Amino acid sequence: MRNWLLPEHIADILPATARQVESAKAAMLDLFRSAGYELVSPPLIEYADSLISEGDDALDLKTFKLVDQLSGRQLGLRADITPQVARIDAHLLSGRQGVTRLCYAGSVVHALPSGLMSSREPLQVGAELYGYAGIEADEEIIALMLEVLSQAGVAGLRLDLGHVGIFRALAAAAGLSHKATRELFLALQGKDVGTVNELAGRLAEPWRSALRVLPELYGPAEVLARARAVLPPLPEIDAALDQLAALGDALKGQAEIGFDLAELRGDDYHTGLVYAAYAPGWSEALARGGRYDNVGERFGRARPATGFSLDLRDLIRILPERDSVRGIRVAAAQLPAAKAEIARLRAAGEVVLIDYLGESAEALYCDRELIPAASGWQVVPFN
Amino acid sequence: MRNWLLPEHIADILPATARQVESAKAAMLDLFRSAGYELVSPPLIEYADSLISEGDDALDLKTFKLVDQLSGRQLGLRADITPQVARIDAHLLSGRQGVTRLCYAGSVVHALPSGLMSSREPLQVGAELYGYAGIEADEEIIALMLEVLSQAGVAGLRLDLGHVGIFRALAAAAGLSHKATRELFLALQGKDVGTVNELAGRLAEPWRSALRVLPELYGPAEVLARARAVLPPLPEIDAALDQLAALGDALKGQAEIGFDLAELRGDDYHTGLVYAAYAPGWSEALARGGRYDNVGERFGRARPATGFSLDLRDLIRILPERDSVRGIRVAAAQLPAAKAEIARLRAAGEVVLIDYLGESAEALYCDRELIPAASGWQVVPFN
Repeated sequence: MRNWLLPEHIADILPATARQVESAKAAMLDLFRSAGYELVSPPLIEYADSLISEGDDALDLKTFKLVDQLSGRQLGLRADITPQVARIDAHLLSGRQGVTRLCYAGSVVHALPSGLMSSREPLQVGAELYGYAGIEADEEIIALMLEVLSQAGVAGLRLDLGHVGIFRALAAAAGLSHKATRELFLALQGKDVGTVNELAGRLAEPWRSALRVLPELYGPAEVLARARAVLPPLPEIDAALDQLAALGDALKGQAEIGFDLAELRGDDYHTGLVYAAYAPGWSEALARGGRYDNVGERFGRARPATGFSLDLRDLIRILPERDSVRGIRVAAAQLPAAKAEIARLRAAGEVVLIDYLGESAEALYCDRELIPAASGWQVVPFN
Repeated sequence: MRNWLLPEHIADILPATARQVESAKAAMLDLFRSAGYELVSPPLIEYADSLISEGDDALDLKTFKLVDQLSGRQLGLRADITPQVARIDAHLLSGRQGVTRLCYAGSVVHALPSGLMSSREPLQVGAELYGYAGIEADEEIIALMLEVLSQAGVAGLRLDLGHVGIFRALAAAAGLSHKATRELFLALQGKDVGTVNELAGRLAEPWRSALRVLPELYGPAEVLARARAVLPPLPEIDAALDQLAALGDALKGQAEIGFDLAELRGDDYHTGLVYAAYAPGWSEALARGGRYDNVGERFGRARPATGFSLDLRDLIRILPERDSVRGIRVAAAQLPAAKAEIARLRAAGEVVLIDYLGESAEALYCDRELIPAASGWQVVPFN
């Protein structure tokens, strides 16, 4: 009913929620700021080939295309902000040689919804750290992701850690083509065990068993020991497992930690560690991110990078609603005499409404009233 | 140079400016809130026929069109938020019979720039008051517009008041066709006196002289007396001049006030009073608005309405830059021991950065450093 004038998976944010979104966003940006993340605000539209890297079919499908009347070139309506931030680090801030911390908050638009309940206009909030490959950078970003969520009011956080490098090492060692790698990647992403078994069945050992066992390698820290026992001893896999173990130790106590070696839910550009945060009762991740080293390469600058993002429009659904504050009514007849007093009350944080029609306390959402008194002005109950 | 990867009239907002935009926006939304304006956040895309009312060619040209893969229908990327807010008042909040105050802040996208220096992605911030036709509603909105601008730091504000009803009454009385009205409207909007004289030359008196004198009727309050003397005594014109005089009196002292009876810079949907705020040294209006009664009619609910909007991306160019705060550096080697102290400093409003690479004070933008001391931790100068 609420949406009948709007396209499917598109909705207005109405007053009660809009203020909540705005203040949650402000709190997140404050937190990012306190950790040294600089805010950037890339445009909603830009050339499609700078928004979407070649071969990223998933992002391409999600991106609405437009024709630029000024250049005749194809534009995209952004479906993800991360590639834009990579462009900024690579190009506009290329004078900086050290670590660059950037954050953002803005709407993106998806041509097709990613799920039955998903909005086609997520409000993407995220933070990215460029220029340092060490695992401490991932630890910093993950800690920030967890802190943003708990500050927003999410309780009982669970953190899933994975590593795209394990799958990629197996696929490369098994000699899989780009197309076959992609098929297997999608099957693993979709937790489609039947297809994984079938596709892996065409491969020689030990790759067949290794890829088949991947979907079972999830759970608490013991999974890492099991992985070392059952996966082939490729150096990339050892390194990935070492990173996961180190991160698990470093983040102990900040959330319940689980490992998922088939966790490939990241985007196409992820290259290493991937992480996702969950809350009890919600099957979808509330926030996620990962390593995407060298993402800026096509903009002329390959740098280590790690970052996370969340959809604030989605997150707000699981947070408790806050009571909005009732205001103070002023009858229009009291103007202009009451002007100075109204300004004083507003500056002191009160909501003061001028009532032109003599409306009810409920209609005005006011519980007090400003009236003239012998010695100036007085705020009295109104109902 | 900065934009070479981006389409013309499209730009990133980089760190120094992005924080300034964000905090100016937050201050504006706080001010709106204190006056009882509820925040709404309509979507970036919706059906084109709900974004653009029939015959509004100017808005139609500005709006990028997309095809909705879910419905096959035509979508628009919004080029203006006001029609969306009208839809919300008419449809979603239609249970409310009294005054509804709504505000918003969001990006819009223009297929073509409106001027040589204009961004194609203005950040539109505005407030609208529905359900009251009295001039006090316009006074409230204009006072809010002036307050928002002075709070943002604009000094020496000038307010221009006009009334679309004067031109419309003359055009109707002269029996002008829709097409001829439109041509004359555009010529007046563009202050194109030659074309105005030519088009009006085809009309009988007194309409010819009245339309030709319109572009000269601007200036301080005396203009209203002159208008009464030289314009034909149509009741709509008298009413418009009365409204302008009353508003001028009510707003005296809040800005330098000028009248401009050929001021038709409003959008196609404006029906009565129009207002614009200027600052010294800037030829373009910083904010503007007007009456657009019955704008919600096509959504099934005709109501009086008045409102203003501004482009925050444009406004920020004329505001003084604020110094950003330098942070506190912590060498990565101090982790994890320093964690609690870092959290304490950040909660106290400090920016605390972890330094992984041993960068310079300038590169880190830090002027202090957190180091271990005999009795805990100590913040010392860093340069």
